[in-house]
Amino acid sequence: MLRTHTCGELTANTINQSVTLCGWVQKSRDLGGMTFVDLRDRYGITQVVFNMESNADLCLNARKLGREFVVKIRGKVAERSNKNLKIKTGEIEIIADSLDILTTSQTPPFTIEENTDGGDELRMKYRYLDLRRETVRKNLELRHRLAIETRLYLDRLQFLEVETPVLIKSTPEGARDFVVPSRMNQGEFYALPQSPQTFKQLLMVGGFDRYYQLVKCFRDEDLRADRQPEFTQIDCEMSFVEQDDILQTFEGMVHHLFSAVKGISIPDMPRMTYADAMKYYGNDKPDIRFEMKFVELNELLKGKGFKVMDDAEYIVGICAKGAAEYTRKQLDELTEFVKRPQIGASGLIYARCNADGSVKSSVDKFYNETELALWTKAMDAKPGDLMLILAGEKNKTRKAMSELRLEMGSRLGLRNPSEYRCLWVVDFPLLEWSEETARWHAMHHPFTSPKPEDISILASNPGVVRANAYDMVINGVEVGGGSIRIHNKELQAQMFELLGFSKEDAQAQFGFLMNAFEFGAPPHGGIAFGFDRLCSLFGGTDTIRDFIAFPKNNSGRDVMIDSPSTISAEQLKELGIHVS
Amino acid sequence: MLRTHTCGELTANTINQSVTLCGWVQKSRDLGGMTFVDLRDRYGITQVVFNMESNADLCLNARKLGREFVVKIRGKVAERSNKNLKIKTGEIEIIADSLDILTTSQTPPFTIEENTDGGDELRMKYRYLDLRRETVRKNLELRHRLAIETRLYLDRLQFLEVETPVLIKSTPEGARDFVVPSRMNQGEFYALPQSPQTFKQLLMVGGFDRYYQLVKCFRDEDLRADRQPEFTQIDCEMSFVEQDDILQTFEGMVHHLFSAVKGISIPDMPRMTYADAMKYYGNDKPDIRFEMKFVELNELLKGKGFKVMDDAEYIVGICAKGAAEYTRKQLDELTEFVKRPQIGASGLIYARCNADGSVKSSVDKFYNETELALWTKAMDAKPGDLMLILAGEKNKTRKAMSELRLEMGSRLGLRNPSEYRCLWVVDFPLLEWSEETARWHAMHHPFTSPKPEDISILASNPGVVRANAYDMVINGVEVGGGSIRIHNKELQAQMFELLGFSKEDAQAQFGFLMNAFEFGAPPHGGIAFGFDRLCSLFGGTDTIRDFIAFPKNNSGRDVMIDSPSTISAEQLKELGIHVS
Repeated sequence: MLRTHTCGELTANTINQSVTLCGWVQKSRDLGGMTFVDLRDRYGITQVVFNMESNADLCLNARKLGREFVVKIRGKVAERSNKNLKIKTGEIEIIADSLDILTTSQTPPFTIEENTDGGDELRMKYRYLDLRRETVRKNLELRHRLAIETRLYLDRLQFLEVETPVLIKSTPEGARDFVVPSRMNQGEFYALPQSPQTFKQLLMVGGFDRYYQLVKCFRDEDLRADRQPEFTQIDCEMSFVEQDDILQTFEGMVHHLFSAVKGISIPDMPRMTYADAMKYYGNDKPDIRFEMKFVELNELLKGKGFKVMDDAEYIVGICAKGAAEYTRKQLDELTEFVKRPQIGASGLIYARCNADGSVKSSVDKFYNETELALWTKAMDAKPGDLMLILAGEKNKTRKAMSELRLEMGSRLGLRNPSEYRCLWVVDFPLLEWSEETARWHAMHHPFTSPKPEDISILASNPGVVRANAYDMVINGVEVGGGSIRIHNKELQAQMFELLGFSKEDAQAQFGFLMNAFEFGAPPHGGIAFGFDRLCSLFGGTDTIRDFIAFPKNNSGRDVMIDSPSTISAEQLKELGIHVS
Repeated sequence: MLRTHTCGELTANTINQSVTLCGWVQKSRDLGGMTFVDLRDRYGITQVVFNMESNADLCLNARKLGREFVVKIRGKVAERSNKNLKIKTGEIEIIADSLDILTTSQTPPFTIEENTDGGDELRMKYRYLDLRRETVRKNLELRHRLAIETRLYLDRLQFLEVETPVLIKSTPEGARDFVVPSRMNQGEFYALPQSPQTFKQLLMVGGFDRYYQLVKCFRDEDLRADRQPEFTQIDCEMSFVEQDDILQTFEGMVHHLFSAVKGISIPDMPRMTYADAMKYYGNDKPDIRFEMKFVELNELLKGKGFKVMDDAEYIVGICAKGAAEYTRKQLDELTEFVKRPQIGASGLIYARCNADGSVKSSVDKFYNETELALWTKAMDAKPGDLMLILAGEKNKTRKAMSELRLEMGSRLGLRNPSEYRCLWVVDFPLLEWSEETARWHAMHHPFTSPKPEDISILASNPGVVRANAYDMVINGVEVGGGSIRIHNKELQAQMFELLGFSKEDAQAQFGFLMNAFEFGAPPHGGIAFGFDRLCSLFGGTDTIRDFIAFPKNNSGRDVMIDSPSTISAEQLKELGIHVS
């Protein structure tokens, strides 16, 4: 090694040792007779001192060092007079006796600091410089640690990591595939996997019993703010299990990760039905760090002559604890919030519970004191609380109230990113009706098993059939989801039919799986976690991009390497394709 | 869980326990009053007994079980009268008191046995059935174990696993890229990585110091017997290192893997220059499980009137210990072997060292006893040994002799697959001349650093410049290779120029890397191991396909899922491409 130590390990125990360090010049300061250089590497920062009096040439060389120069410094560890106890190396400094410049550097286009002056696009273009910032590096160290601990946990439970292929087959169900033209089979294409779903099921048919894989998946979607065309899953499958076995196994995994990686113990995970999640939170991924549950108010608000209420399909309220003091301005902000097009409520009713027990609502002309008292009772509002009410079409109103609830949670400081509350949402509907395509779609995917007790109504009343499907939700974010799978050829065929596949299409696309089911498929089920999302949650932020070493921008472009790009005419010819 | 135990864990300690097992019917035998069923899962095989006398209905049901039915059996553990001490569960059997058929099975197209009756193509088509065979499963279990131990070793040395992108940019250097048309940027393409080379170098520029990744890589090559279009590398890079640091670190990794996974300690790894490997083994990946080194014989065989020798550029011999007894037939086989077109020697000279000290050669009319004695001395041949000599154009003859040496090693039983001898081949040439393209090509890749002492002759005499490049070779197989990289923009630009890149092409393709070198790149180097190959070597076989869960055939086709395949006109339209 060019160095004897890293820039993060020398402490007071090493005083008087001769050492060699390598790293980047974080900054340097000339103080007359002395030049101080902060030398940085992945492991930390060490202060190096050059002394004009004892070695003028060396000190003059040190003065020429620019930011981000890569240097090798030999010297002796000395106690620092001006200690910095915030960092591990803060008790010592290196009195340099030699300096080699290994590589010079241009002035970087933004500062390599916690709070950099670089904008997003600039930092994406120079991602290799952004990666030098401690916060970015720490995110990727966290990701590494989570991956290692995930594997250790699953390995202990006898899960085998099996690599499934990346060059697979295009299937129209689900999102859009990325495809890869085949040169050896011109006119034909591979597809990149949206998930290894069918392969992990085949591994179960193959008797692998417990499978996992940290695996890249691909979706050619129009990218929203926080979607990436390639992303990573913790993909898992188990045989001879029931739903509860999977919930327990992966609840255990998440407990292990919190404990091993963050050193914290999290509360047990409640299980909530999809129906309850929708009823009480208007959302299939409720943030349960705070209560503020929905209360249905149809009975209390209808029939009092207020037409908006009388016409509403659904009226719902939440009680924001301690928010009765909200000013007119704050309440107007909330009204604006729910009226934004992406939320789309037509208005907001509020009612303050005053300290004296009286209630003051925004709709006093329709509801008298007795009626307001009934609201208070229904919502369990106490003096000092603020009741917020929305009304309208049921699904839309639920969605709007869910947003308002989260907004109030944020405003009231109830969504601390370093507090973690996990839960399972279970009993999802098997199917959802799409008006657009006028057919049923699989809510999870076409391989999900209906609950055995609901199979008898699958043909007659598909919309109410529940699935053995589950999501893990942490702090209002869906981090994983899965299901017990169909392992029976007839039921799988029935599902494909319900989903509008012709027999021929089902055979062409999933024939290999249905054939496999002819040869003794075990009961099985599994789950997949969004690993990028899990990392960002552990890191306490919202943006998965910060946890990906080389992310793409919202147009699916890597601005650093400038990809995608055109390819040569010769390549196109070999592949047997033209660009339109 | 549907079971209380697996089929691989019940021993004599559990006698009288009530248990529930699930698994596949491996076979069943009716012996009058009793029916025996071997129940199989990933963990083992357990014998289950159904008794006609105590439970006739159950026994009759058991008799209907076919091979590969999936069943759940409840019963009591009993001591077996007829113990099988070869398997862990061989001391016990289960006296069944209930039987559930979870799934039936058609008769599989081949037997699920160690020695199956299924041919290669059939087993590829029904890979999920082939995966049930113990030998295939054990290969993938070995792969899992190697991956886990690789990660643990590197994690302990503070390497971070960082995922690099799969959708990158096409570059014409090296093998052919697989490309992915971009829908959002029509007319443009991503490429799948042949290796994460430039990204790992950018991680070093980004200060990550130590990186690794078990990563899928892709090459669109015409497939030879044992190549796959997608394969896995253990990809590594380190900063502030010299060649020796890398050799030590990864020698340590391989020692760890042998010890942790196979429980064996392997000898230290010698280092051999490329020049010596070619001189003594005719091959840059010598199998050093046996000696049989090349001896150059130009001086001894030329000028004796044998025209073939007099005209030969190069004459080389090996001494096959104890092979003097080879019959005429065996010697003819060897002559046929070297004359095959893929080896291409024009003939083979041999000389036997008889027990009485005399030497009998196939070219006695040109060489007398005294001359043969000199051969014997040069090749250190002893009575009982066989000398084998080839002559001709130097490179071709070396190659032919290398093949002959390996063949003799195999014939003499010197290539035991469970004996492991590793070495480093170092000091590779930086460049090789291609007659086909009439230009220099990088022997490793364009990012490899010349040895500092050779840089001065890079422009004047590129052919003799050595690189800081190294391969790890185990039992004659190259399992890994790497180099110290260029980290200086000017030298990198000079390399691209030598390789025939115009300034514009170099900038268009690798501009991001050269730009990165403007901002303080540390000295760095790395290595990549072929993980599929490493697994097959640990498994003691030659075929990497046996260590891949879902391999493709030699036409790059997955015959199980029938991919690649055509895609819809709508997909093509969205991507803005036509098929020619």
